[in-house]
Amino acid sequence: MIFSEMLADAWQKNNSLLCVGLDPDPAKFPAHLKDQPDAIFRFCAAIADATADLACAFKPQIAYFAARRAEDQLEALIAHIHEKHPGVPVILDAKRGDIGSTAEQYAIEAFERYQADAVTVNPYMGRDSVEPWLAYKDKGVILLCRTSNPGGSDIQFLKVGVGETALYELVAEKVAKEWNTTGQCALVVGATFPGEIARVREIVGDLPLLVPGIGAQGGDIEATVNAGKTAAGTGLMINSSRAILYASKGEDFAAAARKVALETRDAINRYR
Amino acid sequence: MIFSEMLADAWQKNNSLLCVGLDPDPAKFPAHLKDQPDAIFRFCAAIADATADLACAFKPQIAYFAARRAEDQLEALIAHIHEKHPGVPVILDAKRGDIGSTAEQYAIEAFERYQADAVTVNPYMGRDSVEPWLAYKDKGVILLCRTSNPGGSDIQFLKVGVGETALYELVAEKVAKEWNTTGQCALVVGATFPGEIARVREIVGDLPLLVPGIGAQGGDIEATVNAGKTAAGTGLMINSSRAILYASKGEDFAAAARKVALETRDAINRYR
Repeated sequence: MIFSEMLADAWQKNNSLLCVGLDPDPAKFPAHLKDQPDAIFRFCAAIADATADLACAFKPQIAYFAARRAEDQLEALIAHIHEKHPGVPVILDAKRGDIGSTAEQYAIEAFERYQADAVTVNPYMGRDSVEPWLAYKDKGVILLCRTSNPGGSDIQFLKVGVGETALYELVAEKVAKEWNTTGQCALVVGATFPGEIARVREIVGDLPLLVPGIGAQGGDIEATVNAGKTAAGTGLMINSSRAILYASKGEDFAAAARKVALETRDAINRYR
Repeated sequence: MIFSEMLADAWQKNNSLLCVGLDPDPAKFPAHLKDQPDAIFRFCAAIADATADLACAFKPQIAYFAARRAEDQLEALIAHIHEKHPGVPVILDAKRGDIGSTAEQYAIEAFERYQADAVTVNPYMGRDSVEPWLAYKDKGVILLCRTSNPGGSDIQFLKVGVGETALYELVAEKVAKEWNTTGQCALVVGATFPGEIARVREIVGDLPLLVPGIGAQGGDIEATVNAGKTAAGTGLMINSSRAILYASKGEDFAAAARKVALETRDAINRYR
């Protein structure tokens, strides 16, 4: 099934724009999991099982696995989600970006090895660095546009060309109007800048937006939804990671995560 | 030993500005290696052993390992180079870029797990996405500036600000004058654009430049060296990957690689 259809189905079936970010940091795990050899898999799988009916997507961040030699646990996690929760797409947050021949290798990593349904990609190296990803016609390719970190402004907010266009606006336009010939593309736009989410929505029509930065990073849910929703009240994957994952440090961590995910989904839905 | 000193020593001791890129593609390996379980390690280690006295750096490209579940072979390869050829720094070509808390995890991957001496990083997410890398004071951080692929122009060649400055020029200026407070930074500037190498050199003083794109990608050695060398005749890591790695498909592949590396080093030296 193609990513854009999986996502549209999950928005509807789970009545949710919430993307659950899986950034597993073993230092924050409950004590009873810490010494397990597959603690990362167990922790993330338990979170996924507890929130799958509340989410429109899961987003594992590969750095947290790679820092701990846990690639095998990432493979197992994505396989687990696909088997147990086939309606919820998995976005591999990898932010890769390289010349075509190398991008082909990264696409094998993300789509063939890990079997991700979509991946985040950095646009700095331009269109031919994105094409090897788009060659996988059933997969989603989510380009960084306006990121939620303070330094995002250093480059993305530069004025480009003759007018008052900022670089992130031009990236949004290029992706929506030139690169997205197959309907596979989406954009990352941080929740810390609702005015800029609105600007991107204006440029890209109904293109899906992945919005990190609510919760730990301080973005406001009401402003984010108002700025980013489409006419149909969808179009968004609003990511929360830490607030859900570490809602409790006890043995009840999965139930606590579910509670926060439910509250977050419902808080989002109030403004759709 | 800190990266910038390792590099300066290797330039001098090996009389070389050649960086040997390790992009192992098993489909191109000699027949006698293809079926070995650790073929990637064996192939790359043989290339490294055959060229270590001719190189100023080795640059393994992590995508080629990750696409084949060969992270363990990448760890073994870097450990092998450090043990057998301690004077030649290893640059992990990963082009990572993410918010601070995630960049910390990527830095653990590159510097603690793989023990790389330097890493390539994407600047699109700005200064705070680079700082976790710089926190490792002995390591090098090589920012993408002007990449060698055709699509590099899509974003990097946009005019920014009020004048005629292109984005890659502004990245060069930011890195050299604002981000490089500790002397750890370098830049990636593709050999396919010698005029732009000269422009970057003008902006950044003696900052080291990693220059991919000679050989398979078509960049010209004479123009590259003339445009990029410092007054001391150094300042460059000119990368060649495929032309060296796949000089022969026979059992003599390492000897053939050495021959091409020697010719390339000497061709570079003619213009220093």
